[in-house]
Amino acid sequence: MNFTYSEKTRQLQEKLNAFMEKYVYPNEKTYEDQLNEGGNRWKIPAILEELKAKAKEEGLWNLFLPKNEVEDGLTNLEYAPLAEIMGRSLIGPEIFNCNAPDTGNMEVFLKYGTEDQKEKWLNPLLNGEIRSAFLMTEPEVASSDATNIECRIERDGDEYVINGRKWWSTNGGDPRTKIFIVMGKTDPNAERYKQQSMILVPRDTPGVTVKRTLSVFGYDHAPTGHAEIILEDVRVPAENILLGEGRGFEIAQGRLGPGRVHHCMRAIGAAERALELMCKRAESRVTFGKKLSEQGVIREWIANSRIEIEQARLLTLKTAYMMDTAGNKEARKEIAMIKVAVPEVCLKVIDRAIQVHGAGGVSDDFPLAEHWANARTLRFVDGPDEVHRRDIARIELKPYRNK
Amino acid sequence: MNFTYSEKTRQLQEKLNAFMEKYVYPNEKTYEDQLNEGGNRWKIPAILEELKAKAKEEGLWNLFLPKNEVEDGLTNLEYAPLAEIMGRSLIGPEIFNCNAPDTGNMEVFLKYGTEDQKEKWLNPLLNGEIRSAFLMTEPEVASSDATNIECRIERDGDEYVINGRKWWSTNGGDPRTKIFIVMGKTDPNAERYKQQSMILVPRDTPGVTVKRTLSVFGYDHAPTGHAEIILEDVRVPAENILLGEGRGFEIAQGRLGPGRVHHCMRAIGAAERALELMCKRAESRVTFGKKLSEQGVIREWIANSRIEIEQARLLTLKTAYMMDTAGNKEARKEIAMIKVAVPEVCLKVIDRAIQVHGAGGVSDDFPLAEHWANARTLRFVDGPDEVHRRDIARIELKPYRNK
Amino acid sequence: MNFTYSEKTRQLQEKLNAFMEKYVYPNEKTYEDQLNEGGNRWKIPAILEELKAKAKEEGLWNLFLPKNEVEDGLTNLEYAPLAEIMGRSLIGPEIFNCNAPDTGNMEVFLKYGTEDQKEKWLNPLLNGEIRSAFLMTEPEVASSDATNIECRIERDGDEYVINGRKWWSTNGGDPRTKIFIVMGKTDPNAERYKQQSMILVPRDTPGVTVKRTLSVFGYDHAPTGHAEIILEDVRVPAENILLGEGRGFEIAQGRLGPGRVHHCMRAIGAAERALELMCKRAESRVTFGKKLSEQGVIREWIANSRIEIEQARLLTLKTAYMMDTAGNKEARKEIAMIKVAVPEVCLKVIDRAIQVHGAGGVSDDFPLAEHWANARTLRFVDGPDEVHRRDIARIELKPYRNK
Amino acid sequence: MNFTYSEKTRQLQEKLNAFMEKYVYPNEKTYEDQLNEGGNRWKIPAILEELKAKAKEEGLWNLFLPKNEVEDGLTNLEYAPLAEIMGRSLIGPEIFNCNAPDTGNMEVFLKYGTEDQKEKWLNPLLNGEIRSAFLMTEPEVASSDATNIECRIERDGDEYVINGRKWWSTNGGDPRTKIFIVMGKTDPNAERYKQQSMILVPRDTPGVTVKRTLSVFGYDHAPTGHAEIILEDVRVPAENILLGEGRGFEIAQGRLGPGRVHHCMRAIGAAERALELMCKRAESRVTFGKKLSEQGVIREWIANSRIEIEQARLLTLKTAYMMDTAGNKEARKEIAMIKVAVPEVCLKVIDRAIQVHGAGGVSDDFPLAEHWANARTLRFVDGPDEVHRRDIARIELKPYRNK
Repeated sequence: MNFTYSEKTRQLQEKLNAFMEKYVYPNEKTYEDQLNEGGNRWKIPAILEELKAKAKEEGLWNLFLPKNEVEDGLTNLEYAPLAEIMGRSLIGPEIFNCNAPDTGNMEVFLKYGTEDQKEKWLNPLLNGEIRSAFLMTEPEVASSDATNIECRIERDGDEYVINGRKWWSTNGGDPRTKIFIVMGKTDPNAERYKQQSMILVPRDTPGVTVKRTLSVFGYDHAPTGHAEIILEDVRVPAENILLGEGRGFEIAQGRLGPGRVHHCMRAIGAAERALELMCKRAESRVTFGKKLSEQGVIREWIANSRIEIEQARLLTLKTAYMMDTAGNKEARKEIAMIKVAVPEVCLKVIDRAIQVHGAGGVSDDFPLAEHWANARTLRFVDGPDEVHRRDIARIELKPYRNK
Repeated sequence: MNFTYSEKTRQLQEKLNAFMEKYVYPNEKTYEDQLNEGGNRWKIPAILEELKAKAKEEGLWNLFLPKNEVEDGLTNLEYAPLAEIMGRSLIGPEIFNCNAPDTGNMEVFLKYGTEDQKEKWLNPLLNGEIRSAFLMTEPEVASSDATNIECRIERDGDEYVINGRKWWSTNGGDPRTKIFIVMGKTDPNAERYKQQSMILVPRDTPGVTVKRTLSVFGYDHAPTGHAEIILEDVRVPAENILLGEGRGFEIAQGRLGPGRVHHCMRAIGAAERALELMCKRAESRVTFGKKLSEQGVIREWIANSRIEIEQARLLTLKTAYMMDTAGNKEARKEIAMIKVAVPEVCLKVIDRAIQVHGAGGVSDDFPLAEHWANARTLRFVDGPDEVHRRDIARIELKPYRNK
Repeated sequence: MNFTYSEKTRQLQEKLNAFMEKYVYPNEKTYEDQLNEGGNRWKIPAILEELKAKAKEEGLWNLFLPKNEVEDGLTNLEYAPLAEIMGRSLIGPEIFNCNAPDTGNMEVFLKYGTEDQKEKWLNPLLNGEIRSAFLMTEPEVASSDATNIECRIERDGDEYVINGRKWWSTNGGDPRTKIFIVMGKTDPNAERYKQQSMILVPRDTPGVTVKRTLSVFGYDHAPTGHAEIILEDVRVPAENILLGEGRGFEIAQGRLGPGRVHHCMRAIGAAERALELMCKRAESRVTFGKKLSEQGVIREWIANSRIEIEQARLLTLKTAYMMDTAGNKEARKEIAMIKVAVPEVCLKVIDRAIQVHGAGGVSDDFPLAEHWANARTLRFVDGPDEVHRRDIARIELKPYRNK
Repeated sequence: MNFTYSEKTRQLQEKLNAFMEKYVYPNEKTYEDQLNEGGNRWKIPAILEELKAKAKEEGLWNLFLPKNEVEDGLTNLEYAPLAEIMGRSLIGPEIFNCNAPDTGNMEVFLKYGTEDQKEKWLNPLLNGEIRSAFLMTEPEVASSDATNIECRIERDGDEYVINGRKWWSTNGGDPRTKIFIVMGKTDPNAERYKQQSMILVPRDTPGVTVKRTLSVFGYDHAPTGHAEIILEDVRVPAENILLGEGRGFEIAQGRLGPGRVHHCMRAIGAAERALELMCKRAESRVTFGKKLSEQGVIREWIANSRIEIEQARLLTLKTAYMMDTAGNKEARKEIAMIKVAVPEVCLKVIDRAIQVHGAGGVSDDFPLAEHWANARTLRFVDGPDEVHRRDIARIELKPYRNK
């Protein structure tokens, strides 16, 4: 295990940190203010596009692109500390065109898209001109078990007809979103992991209805949003199917591994920022004649936060390293492990930071509450903790089975 | 210790439960929908006033009024299980005119108000016609230590002049709110607990600016809201001071004890509802061929939730019983104990319920996320956990001191 | 729910506390010293019999006897606070003839014994002259599931022949132990809960071998001990079977309910004593210029300990109250709840007390480590936590089933 | 950060693992049996010396020796995975002459001993012929604060006279122990960290009394033991002082850093073994018709154990790496972090393994209970958690101070 950051990584870390200090943190409020202007939050704040332009200019753009897909791409280990920095701000990832689910979707296009599809969807995505959504989760069934999916994709001549109801499709409320990748069943009678397929559905296809967006602990996450989307007799050309019928589960697996690592690295960034805010606050507030930082209980929170973050980061780096050197499949236990461990640490650290901030901590005067709400969703996004723990135990128990 | 519910309590429990089932739960969505109509959420949904009228009609009104203040009032032990039922819905307490901070404010008027003040403010509050706010917490200092308060109340002839900045004044955003009870310092040089006073400030007094409302996680809590309020050279007649100069801390203490018990009982109601929703969901969802309710881990959550709620409720009842029989002062350790224990239990139970609901759990399709956000604030409302724990330890250590 | 202690309870509490202060605590070391004299610990320290005589003299004897079985017996609610006091010392319960498993065994004799059996075994047990063991748990199978039991009890003419291997039979190493109550299967083909029977086996019956005693962490628990016992073709008269064939499970259930409450009450006593020791130590030790009791972290431990003990005790009292008023069957959820909750609290409190005592805390200079080891066994004695939690969840889920 | 194990490490891991499988695990019971023979446990089991000879023969001897002190020594990072393997068995470390406190004491001799002292004490220690003790902790004061130490070392002509009372001196009960390193104050009026000195006291010096050995959760840890030792007017030649007066704190610091890492690595080995036993047991026991390994709750324990161990090991490796590359002083935050994190993980994992083993788990039929008791002492050995957390927080807060 060699986690030494490459020279390239170190330079990018430095540039990113400088960019965050100079442009991102000071504009978090600007972003929010522009969003709140005029009553309709479902529009793009100008500051976002300005910062995107600047990031692109400075070469801090599409850093998520993987080495094994594109020349000049980064390994998971190289990208991990960069994603961490971006994750310190909730508006960070998109500024660098590194936000979910677009990154995962772009990887899908890169790997499985036809030239035509790449031209039409991948290029504008890489340029940050359009957004995309990934329609997987369904309201009626527990989506942690992919075999539960009810959305149907049926062949009809040269077309596929899609019927289903999806929700939590991030970017679904964004006016810039043009393309959906939809997971559904082409053959409910095939073997368990061959029933699903993925298909491209342009957002403006007849039969597509974005019914509403869902909030996360009161946050609407405008302007991207998490949408509930109805698909009624939606027809797309047969070539829109990715890789072919029955390959949906396989694509999902390939997509989710790196996605989980990215989520975790960003969550560590959020935890680091919370620890920083906690320390600053503890140094600046006085109760009962002492600074908060002199209270033993607060010190314990700070120490535990550091201990927990440090361990979580190391496990994430190890996971990235294993993905790079042994492959995503070999690293599946590690991926499951960080998926459980990191959100838990992140939630604990932010919760302590909130408590140190008192009432201010739950408001939007600090980024803590929204970061917390975000991290809370990670405990079921891409599979709930419980399913990951079950998988880890299964792998762990294997050597002792039938002995 | 006798926690047997009186006949009166049992009848009221039954009536309240019936009312909740018939009118409150089914209208939670109506309330939200009416609030969202027309773009401005800072208005009163018609359904609220309808339900208030109905509750009043059925005698489920002002049940919080204490036996030692009004004839026909209830003891803490009698009221506790009723507050629990109301707390199951976020719109519950106000429907029965039992919502904070109005209940605490009404008690202050009852005990310390002049006839004139009662006429002007208490009666319309008791009728549910107006709302009130309690201006204590300040953004610049740690309010857990009341001696930090910076708001000034200065005598000038027949008037007091008030200058200060307050926040988290619940009801501060409500158009019906007419009166503020303001905590500030009349004499910063007096002994530690004699510096503060409380004074009445009508909302429309010149110099009062409601600057903004604060959100709790992403919830704006419209139409009541938690306001930041600027008081600049606000002048009120000298008789507006309650009890006299230097009595603010004393009034606050008298006000906070029962308030904390009410908060805790409502939180237990919220936890009970979450457990109910968790059980229902666990019975209705299937993953990997089994109902969630058949998964060992989910069963453990349900069992632990029941164990924790049960203990928290018993401790709250004991506290109520002690307040009734030995007085609030004797019960101060118990009050501090439930203030720490109950929100923690409530947060744990709701968090598990959220996890069982998956993504739906963090949205507003279920009342879980908002109840959680509410309960999270209880960890610092009326003093943070840490201060309560310190007090408990101090009392606990006393017998061993200097031995 | 009325937990008010009766006058009788209050008087007994006072007498017991006085006895503990005067005779028990000061002789804990004497007991250990006498045990260590001469190299063989499997003998009865003289101080034990002296204190038993004194307790009997003062009427603090057999207080466990239940009101519904004997005149002058105590209800569960009356006995609970007394068991708590006895449980503060590890040598306490036996001094008052209230130690497990003798109490449970005596109850079995009381309810199900023939006159002859009572004469022969019950009377000397009630007099504290002999001891008894309960042979249930087996090394080869998970005894949490009673249907796993492999010990066979087979009818052969006027006798039963018993073959099996048992362990963790408390008192099995005690030279005073004369009688075993053995659980085994008379009919492995009967329905699930009718396969087991209980039978009396005098300790000196041919075929009985006490193979060894087991330690708990490093404690041998001499002179009583927890024995592994081999039963090889052990023959006893047919009348030794209790209640009749197939009634073993039923007797076990009746025996375990009150036993669990007693265990829990004693554990609360152990926790209280640990908290007391923790406070004393915190007041007497100085580090970095401050008493430990002035360290915020230590104060937090003290406060949390008080909060947790208080809740655990209330739940135990409620359970005792329900057993008294609604019966053991109705109280089975509550019994399961305290069985999970109380040992956990007890372990946490003692662990904190150990930490405050530093290295001394794990030694036998303080009763903490041994109390901890004892409490740790409660997490599986009479069924592991996991089985109790499963039961609680099952009861909790029932109203939501098939709806 | 490069944690890749060197070729040398990998070969030693393989050899060590083979040795453990072949000689150590199968002889744990032999060791205990030999110890129990004849009634006196304070003698050396023959198997121990046999295995030591074999380990020496195979070159698995003194692996703890640090690269910066001896040619062919190992770096911390190289040694860490080896200490982990040894720590899997409680009799492991001594077999390889890598047990505390001898390793630390040998390092002290290496660095600070005169040629004469090395000849007399270091060589036989390196050969495993004698044992040594480190007399630091005192019963009367909180030794977590080194300035509390009361033992006096006073110059009297060519000698030093030592008076004090020490306890928890490991090896103090071992008949092979010949030399003590004693920490005491030469000048109580010097500045805080210059008051202490370390001095060599041969075990048979007049005035030395080994009063008793202390148990750890009932374990006597014979034949080494943790002794209480009285030093009364003990006289040793002046040259026995190490490095000179006032250097005691400095030597202690140098000694404790690597010692803490070794403790942590062994604790991780203990946790790994517990996880292994837990998996094996879970695969082999059946309750309610299912293997324990199929119970969701047990699977969760296994998954969490793996997640926690993995993180703790990575943090320990990082610490070892930092000590090697940046020095012990730079690594002091990391050393403090593992000192808090690792014992906690180890205790949790073993506790779960105990629960899976039921009553067997607390007995000595499995190494779990004793490993647990051992790990529990790590929470205060070389400073309690609380002091380490305070130090971590202090370092963490430094950048925010006075800003």
